[in-house]
Amino acid sequence: MNFQGIYHRPKSNYCYAYDKDTVHIRLRASKGDLENVILVYGDKYIWSQNREIEMKLECSDKYFDYFIAEIKPPYRRLAYYFILEGKSERYYYTEWGFFDEIDKDEVYMHFFEYPFLNKIDIHKVSEWVKDAVFYQIFPERFYNGDKFNDPKGVEKWGEAPKSDNFFGGDLKGIIDKLDYLTDLGINAIYLTPIFESYSNHKYNTKDYMKIDPHFGDLNTMKELVQKCHERGIKVVLDAVFNHIGYYSAQFQDVVKKGKKSPYYDWFYIREWPIETDPPNYYTFAFAPYMPKLNTENPEVKEYLLNVAKYWIEEADIDGWRLDVANEIDHSFWREFRKVVKKTKSDAYIVGEIWHDSLPWLLGDQFDAVMNYPFTRVCIQYFAHRNLNNKEFKELINETQIRNTQQVNEVMLNLLDSHDTSRFLYKAKGDKESLKLASVFQLTYLGAPCIYYGTEIGMNGGDDPDCRRTMEWNEDKWNKDLLNHYKRLIKIRNEHEALRRGNFKWIEGLDDVVGFVRETDKEEIIVLINNSNQDKEIQLKVNGTEYIDLVKDKKINCDRVLKTTITKGNFEILLNIK
Amino acid sequence: MNFQGIYHRPKSNYCYAYDKDTVHIRLRASKGDLENVILVYGDKYIWSQNREIEMKLECSDKYFDYFIAEIKPPYRRLAYYFILEGKSERYYYTEWGFFDEIDKDEVYMHFFEYPFLNKIDIHKVSEWVKDAVFYQIFPERFYNGDKFNDPKGVEKWGEAPKSDNFFGGDLKGIIDKLDYLTDLGINAIYLTPIFESYSNHKYNTKDYMKIDPHFGDLNTMKELVQKCHERGIKVVLDAVFNHIGYYSAQFQDVVKKGKKSPYYDWFYIREWPIETDPPNYYTFAFAPYMPKLNTENPEVKEYLLNVAKYWIEEADIDGWRLDVANEIDHSFWREFRKVVKKTKSDAYIVGEIWHDSLPWLLGDQFDAVMNYPFTRVCIQYFAHRNLNNKEFKELINETQIRNTQQVNEVMLNLLDSHDTSRFLYKAKGDKESLKLASVFQLTYLGAPCIYYGTEIGMNGGDDPDCRRTMEWNEDKWNKDLLNHYKRLIKIRNEHEALRRGNFKWIEGLDDVVGFVRETDKEEIIVLINNSNQDKEIQLKVNGTEYIDLVKDKKINCDRVLKTTITKGNFEILLNIK
Repeated sequence: MNFQGIYHRPKSNYCYAYDKDTVHIRLRASKGDLENVILVYGDKYIWSQNREIEMKLECSDKYFDYFIAEIKPPYRRLAYYFILEGKSERYYYTEWGFFDEIDKDEVYMHFFEYPFLNKIDIHKVSEWVKDAVFYQIFPERFYNGDKFNDPKGVEKWGEAPKSDNFFGGDLKGIIDKLDYLTDLGINAIYLTPIFESYSNHKYNTKDYMKIDPHFGDLNTMKELVQKCHERGIKVVLDAVFNHIGYYSAQFQDVVKKGKKSPYYDWFYIREWPIETDPPNYYTFAFAPYMPKLNTENPEVKEYLLNVAKYWIEEADIDGWRLDVANEIDHSFWREFRKVVKKTKSDAYIVGEIWHDSLPWLLGDQFDAVMNYPFTRVCIQYFAHRNLNNKEFKELINETQIRNTQQVNEVMLNLLDSHDTSRFLYKAKGDKESLKLASVFQLTYLGAPCIYYGTEIGMNGGDDPDCRRTMEWNEDKWNKDLLNHYKRLIKIRNEHEALRRGNFKWIEGLDDVVGFVRETDKEEIIVLINNSNQDKEIQLKVNGTEYIDLVKDKKINCDRVLKTTITKGNFEILLNIK
Repeated sequence: MNFQGIYHRPKSNYCYAYDKDTVHIRLRASKGDLENVILVYGDKYIWSQNREIEMKLECSDKYFDYFIAEIKPPYRRLAYYFILEGKSERYYYTEWGFFDEIDKDEVYMHFFEYPFLNKIDIHKVSEWVKDAVFYQIFPERFYNGDKFNDPKGVEKWGEAPKSDNFFGGDLKGIIDKLDYLTDLGINAIYLTPIFESYSNHKYNTKDYMKIDPHFGDLNTMKELVQKCHERGIKVVLDAVFNHIGYYSAQFQDVVKKGKKSPYYDWFYIREWPIETDPPNYYTFAFAPYMPKLNTENPEVKEYLLNVAKYWIEEADIDGWRLDVANEIDHSFWREFRKVVKKTKSDAYIVGEIWHDSLPWLLGDQFDAVMNYPFTRVCIQYFAHRNLNNKEFKELINETQIRNTQQVNEVMLNLLDSHDTSRFLYKAKGDKESLKLASVFQLTYLGAPCIYYGTEIGMNGGDDPDCRRTMEWNEDKWNKDLLNHYKRLIKIRNEHEALRRGNFKWIEGLDDVVGFVRETDKEEIIVLINNSNQDKEIQLKVNGTEYIDLVKDKKINCDRVLKTTITKGNFEILLNIK
């Protein structure tokens, strides 16, 4: 047995409360090393009544198998250890390591513990996100609904985006295009920043309390949210709290008055007078126009928490996406969560973190993060095609196992964004790749998020090229792709199994990626052929009749499903129980 | 290379801020597997300026080597990955796994990150604890200083303790014996509960705002703290917030009025009327006289936080020991820390958790815990003698590596307590075992805590036997042991290296345990012979003259220290730089 491969640690993704009654216990072991894992568990104060349960293999990645058990401790207290069974070995695994036997007098020291299931500590995530299909909008480039509020010198819609040019997109433009979104099947939008700022991206805020005049005003914002809500569309805004704009009143006061400014401690000023090249104050990256806010300062905290609260109360928004979330202190985010959830209990809090995000995702901070690890795996598999089927699944499993189940259920799964080149660009324009990637995105665990225009085949390299104006000339749309997106979103919206069902890979399909999403009522099988050959599939199934949801036809089968999936194609099959 | 043995995860004991400038990075690898580990690190926004540093081997346990590096990131942002060099292999290890090379375009996704060193998130621990030698007192059994406040029917001092008998010990008794503590060298005391309660242990509080009348009153308490402070002794009280007493006004109101009681939601009542056998409400363990408090209830929270604040403000106490700390919600403890540290910034917060306690020890909750894992290893090695020297060191290392350095520096290291049989009982009365264990306890990292009477050779099995009355008849003291304790405590108090110095094992001493504690000014070598043979030691050292602090004599040496340590003996050698 490879003892060094075994891993478990309580109160992490390896042991957490899933809901008020249930604790999930995971154990990691070297791949193929264990035949069986038994969880021995009980209440530590009546340990003699302990029980045993066989753990299930949850998934595997390149090096490890992950086992899982769900326990409902009757008195909310859970003590446990493991019995590891290899091919010819058997060990007890406890907090103290590996043992042939456990001394009964010492058992109390051996336990792992989830000491008490306190409801307030459970990571309760925003429920509606499980049913959401997001659409990310960069407002300056979506649609120009109000020509009267255009910035000076706007370029012609469709010209090349530059880091500093403008096209006149605005909130009215989004309102005008809500039919488009509804038609697409969208039920949530995430807008990059809309508060006053001189840039086109507005990540350098001048005033958090004011809609940028080129985008509209408070009334336009209220109207947008109200009209979205009438259509069942939730609205999430971008909270850029790591830094403010150089031309904010607060920073300008410091520029002018130095230490005499009441805002001096709102920032990390190294020296005064202020210089910008290089900046003698902390900034986002090394960008002088984005001075970093001192979020440890109680005044700054109060100010920003009021901003967070204000837009929920005033405009009725449904959540916040948190820019550069991992460079702000945890202490701030803990208070942020309290304020936001108190103001709107089901508001979605989603951080921008590109890496392993567990320290923010254990219940006291965010609901989820932008799932860039998911993005990366999809790009490698579907766009670059430098992973095989097995590697793809292992890497997806690896991103999944990093977090708890409730987090995976509300992750914001994206293929591209305003901060990346577009998926289609990475796929060298191959729309079939995008189709398959989007099938996976739209049928997988978590909330899919479509970057505006991806659904009609818009292309673009790194920023600023990925921020081109939305194409509204329908003749230039890739209608096949758009119809594909509409169909897939409709299927997701119509079938709870795709939104809230369990997720399980189907093994033994060679080059076809297959998985099942399942609820008590529905079983949906998704099959994706990303290989360069047509593939015949024979699959033992539970149902006798399936519905091909894409082609909308019935498939009769006698517990064995036979189908041929041509290369670059996919099937979504429904069995109603 | 055993890839499965490699472990690292940011924002845990494997990567944490040690102080406002410094991040500690640890990497775990299978024992003996790596020849060299290089940390590649930099600021992610100017990654081209990245640097490399060779990591040091911090320590090893049974299965793993642990490497460490200290980094001071100039812009407070730290991105990094590792280069692992085995005997004939070399890999890059990143958040995404193991690679022969890293694609430069992808490096941003590969990083591990400590994204920003926010001062407010740093785990700042109570500084004075590093210089503390604690003495744990069970007040009912320490000394009867005031016969007028005795409970009815007190037994004669020295009779056998029972779960429900009384001897009349009180706060005045502690005041009367402060000379004894000062003489012993103690500079901190931890008292088990002293608030009103009908039991002798007082873990079932009737009124948190009132000193138990059999122990004294507010004035006695103030006098105790004041007199302690005059002598440089800190005072830590026991916060029993997991549960209250059955006869508290709050629970009695529920017993009487049920749902009509304003205190109904202070508890977890399953059914009313209240029944006690078995209890139809949540309790500590299954003890009906200890109803569990609902610390999620804002009223309960406010009440208990006021208690925490009150005793600091009113009696000037220096910290809280938290009873059953791991069964109370994290949310409560986060607020508790804020309130306590705001009231007294260097107050010590030490939880009662017998297991791996990392989830409470990352900066937002406790300073440290009662180090029962340390206790266990000391008992196995010194009392039961069922570990060899190597196993002892590996297990100590394992307890150390579970936590961050700042936590290890203020851990409450105990050999026994009111909740365990006494060390001497476990050692079957062998005082030499206790001597060696106490040498380790008093020269190791963290704050030693002596359970009253252990220093004079008191014995006792499990509760209630471990709660015998303190022996004040000096004829019955083991004076050799007492002198040993005094000498050791004096040495610790006189030498900063033993309190604040680095800790490093000396390798190659066979059956002798040796380690160095070192500051810029002093180097102290501790050698402990727990074997059953005399041992000759030859040791390459840096100094040319050492002082034997126990025998108080000089040892001249020419970079090689030669000494013979007889079985069951020890040496503490000082080199002033």
